[in-house]
Amino acid sequence: MTRAINFSAGPAALPEDVLKEAAAQMLDWHGSGQSVMEMSHRGKEFMSIAAAAEADLRELLAIPANYKVLFLQGGATLQFEMIPMNLLAGKTSADYVHTGEWAKKAIKSAKTFCQVNTVASAEDQKFTYAPAQADWKLNSDAAYVHYTANETIGGVEFHWTPNTGNVPLVCDMSSNILSKPIDVAKYGLIYAGAQKNIGPAGLTIVIVREDLIGKGVPTPPTMLDYKTHADNESMYNTPPTYGIYIAGLVFQWLKKQGGLAAMEKKNIEKSALLYDYLDQSQFFKNPVRKQDRSRMNVPFTLKKPELDEEFLKGAKARGMVQLKGHRSVGGMRASIYNAMSIEGVKTLVEYMKEFEKNHG
Amino acid sequence: MTRAINFSAGPAALPEDVLKEAAAQMLDWHGSGQSVMEMSHRGKEFMSIAAAAEADLRELLAIPANYKVLFLQGGATLQFEMIPMNLLAGKTSADYVHTGEWAKKAIKSAKTFCQVNTVASAEDQKFTYAPAQADWKLNSDAAYVHYTANETIGGVEFHWTPNTGNVPLVCDMSSNILSKPIDVAKYGLIYAGAQKNIGPAGLTIVIVREDLIGKGVPTPPTMLDYKTHADNESMYNTPPTYGIYIAGLVFQWLKKQGGLAAMEKKNIEKSALLYDYLDQSQFFKNPVRKQDRSRMNVPFTLKKPELDEEFLKGAKARGMVQLKGHRSVGGMRASIYNAMSIEGVKTLVEYMKEFEKNHG
Repeated sequence: MTRAINFSAGPAALPEDVLKEAAAQMLDWHGSGQSVMEMSHRGKEFMSIAAAAEADLRELLAIPANYKVLFLQGGATLQFEMIPMNLLAGKTSADYVHTGEWAKKAIKSAKTFCQVNTVASAEDQKFTYAPAQADWKLNSDAAYVHYTANETIGGVEFHWTPNTGNVPLVCDMSSNILSKPIDVAKYGLIYAGAQKNIGPAGLTIVIVREDLIGKGVPTPPTMLDYKTHADNESMYNTPPTYGIYIAGLVFQWLKKQGGLAAMEKKNIEKSALLYDYLDQSQFFKNPVRKQDRSRMNVPFTLKKPELDEEFLKGAKARGMVQLKGHRSVGGMRASIYNAMSIEGVKTLVEYMKEFEKNHG
Repeated sequence: MTRAINFSAGPAALPEDVLKEAAAQMLDWHGSGQSVMEMSHRGKEFMSIAAAAEADLRELLAIPANYKVLFLQGGATLQFEMIPMNLLAGKTSADYVHTGEWAKKAIKSAKTFCQVNTVASAEDQKFTYAPAQADWKLNSDAAYVHYTANETIGGVEFHWTPNTGNVPLVCDMSSNILSKPIDVAKYGLIYAGAQKNIGPAGLTIVIVREDLIGKGVPTPPTMLDYKTHADNESMYNTPPTYGIYIAGLVFQWLKKQGGLAAMEKKNIEKSALLYDYLDQSQFFKNPVRKQDRSRMNVPFTLKKPELDEEFLKGAKARGMVQLKGHRSVGGMRASIYNAMSIEGVKTLVEYMKEFEKNHG
């Protein structure tokens, strides 16, 4: 068995140690004689797994006590609808920052429920930068301000936290959560689909300040009401138990790596390896403004797009997979989340150098 | 490692062969160098897994071509809300058959969206039987008729398929799907949370006749609209990929067992072992009317409830777990889905005989 160097944007690579532990425990979790998949979610075994996962996540992100952690389903895409349904609090509009494909989807969904003010947009430069806060035209009567911390497709990341005063800040952190320390207290709500930097697809994590819960549209569907899940410790109905278990193993792994400060250091190092090479290359190019480049997703194009297929083929021959860029932008994309090793990125850069030498 | 004999009502036991295959493929699916958890849902590897899962499910249930199979999230509980939102088709009421805890939840959710006609109820006999169709007071102007094929908590199962004429029949089959052949063409919609007889929690399967899609409330949330998922082959957003993979392995296992006719034979044999013993016992008792007894969930009580804990302790010492009854009914419950072996049931019956002899 050879493990691929996996640059998938999501569902994405997981730490090998986590997968080994999951494989070893597949038929018998800690002497229970059961797979975690086979356990009642209300039994003491799984309750201990869920409690440990939440405690470890709280520790990693230093989540204040007045925030609820919810383990939900439906992905960030369902959150695009749940957020306006839950946070409007009697108001009629919300502020959104438009930074690319994912912000666009969030905006489109919100428009069904309220007036959306696009308070800043990077469309003028083809979404290659993060609009400075000074240019955000915020509205004091907005129910909340929404932004996308990392655009998985465009490769644009906010390396600073917006300040929206008394208006709750809502953040789609799907593709950079747990990649660095953050100050949760600056946010009203943080959400993330698990399949990039947390665990398997099908689990969604929502971190929400308690006072924002229960103030949405008059009669939301029960399953789309944060209050339902907050009041029932995410056990109103059967949660995605195996996803929570794998996420818990990832949290333990992160703690062993030294926590989020250590991950940030490693992520800076990994992404710098790629960007430093890209910036001096005559053949490969990344379009994003330097200070806004994503440490998680590095899109790049070849000078000769007709060589895309050959590049991918050569990468695969060297054990590197899922480098093809998103269909909407073309070219390549290297997603280098927490589970990607420095050695993996070095292998890619060495290959790019070789490819440039042969085809540049 | 010793595997427990696992009587959990859900999430429930899975076939050991499936778990072994999942463990063996955890770090490397078919030479891809990736876990299924790490694959892009739009890559050719996962697309092949999803396509095979759907094809095998269609084969097992002989699903007609004019039915869509949707792989969703949120459990049966979200379906309780999605069904009225999607199937009202301009009408204002729906017919529901009340058979116990799960029917009750479905009815409660539907009341938010429409007038609910409880057209039959087994409440008069504490939900210990399935109301005969002759007693269903159906309404010709109802949008659909909903019933619960198997009450997991009460242990009541319909061993016949209702006939509702031109009004679409909607069925919660969460706890007996794939336990026997069914005639899908008699239904408008069948739904099931995966965690009892299909795979891991977090996957929900909906089988819906195409002409019923897209006729719901005027503006349903996009993620709660069957049309969204039907039009995008369940890939509108990232589906629960690992759950689909495990379900696919279960479908392959079912085919190897001889398909659903073979499973039905085995399930009749397993449940008869238990019920035959219960009916002659002076110490254990099952309250359900004989012809309506569930082949999947067998609740039973001890003549001396003060011995419940001792019974559970002795069971555990013999490798049998998760036999405690649901908190709403007390006593015991043996859930014996497809993955439970005949030997497992025999072990339980032998233990019950011994217990009765010592304490009867």
